[in-house]
Amino acid sequence: MSVTDEYLSNNAAHAVSFDGPLPLPPSRHLAVVACMDARLNIYEILGLTKGEAHVIRNAGGAVTDDAIRSLTISQRLLGTREIILIHHTDCGMLTFTDDEFKQQIEKETEIRPAWAAEAFSDLEDDVRQSIRRIKVNPFVPYTDAVRGFVFDVATGRLHEVPAHPGEAG
Amino acid sequence: MSVTDEYLSNNAAHAVSFDGPLPLPPSRHLAVVACMDARLNIYEILGLTKGEAHVIRNAGGAVTDDAIRSLTISQRLLGTREIILIHHTDCGMLTFTDDEFKQQIEKETEIRPAWAAEAFSDLEDDVRQSIRRIKVNPFVPYTDAVRGFVFDVATGRLHEVPAHPGEAG
Repeated sequence: MSVTDEYLSNNAAHAVSFDGPLPLPPSRHLAVVACMDARLNIYEILGLTKGEAHVIRNAGGAVTDDAIRSLTISQRLLGTREIILIHHTDCGMLTFTDDEFKQQIEKETEIRPAWAAEAFSDLEDDVRQSIRRIKVNPFVPYTDAVRGFVFDVATGRLHEVPAHPGEAG
Repeated sequence: MSVTDEYLSNNAAHAVSFDGPLPLPPSRHLAVVACMDARLNIYEILGLTKGEAHVIRNAGGAVTDDAIRSLTISQRLLGTREIILIHHTDCGMLTFTDDEFKQQIEKETEIRPAWAAEAFSDLEDDVRQSIRRIKVNPFVPYTDAVRGFVFDVATGRLHEVPAHPGEAG
């Protein structure tokens, strides 16, 4: 039995008491962009309930073109207005560099990815980078309520990242 | 008080009883790629517990270059081996076309996005498209255990998408 099959049997049990459907647009008009890290259950971390917010996740919680695509659809077609960005301590993206990762891939496959891996060396700086990428983007219309946080995987707590380095969070 | 502030106060309550930290690599060696839809709590749907799987999410659960970036990092650096793809009924991506969405954006901002919006008209076909994009990708090394599902937002149940149209799921 594969891991996938185990989770499918969990799903069959879950469906027995399932209560749906809810409306399509997020009821709290919120979109979250977070790292894919296995330890970040965004629903628990924010006390988020089903139907309330879009959840966008990728390696690092980076604001890539694809995150912009998702945010654009989220705001323009489905009415979200606030954005929460979540990076976290002990992130895998702090453990390598784009150059070494892509060289390793090229060595094994003879093909070099045309994309950036988006590794980073400073958590708070990368959160600020992510906020800036949203604010300058022409397609995301509502950027007044964009706030960035670092989730501490040891304590479960979110720390807000100040807009400028050295300010209080 | 903004919606974001409400969720931050939830987080403070959550952190009181938080139990961490867990190890960085996902303990079940699984990556999930799912739609950002607000009704999809992937942890509940799969009975997934913190620390077990990477969760990658975007508009549609599309296998974009950014999803490939995340899967590449997930498998090559953090040891995941199985992939579960989740699309769902009543998806926003079924309600528009790339052309009309991008024309509307261009009309308002005078700039046309250089990215595809990734709207689709057939759920199961798009799941199959996503599986194929992973299987042909040179950077994702483990593609034997890639399975695709449609989540029914009315019943809470996952239906497996057959590899070829018309086969039993």
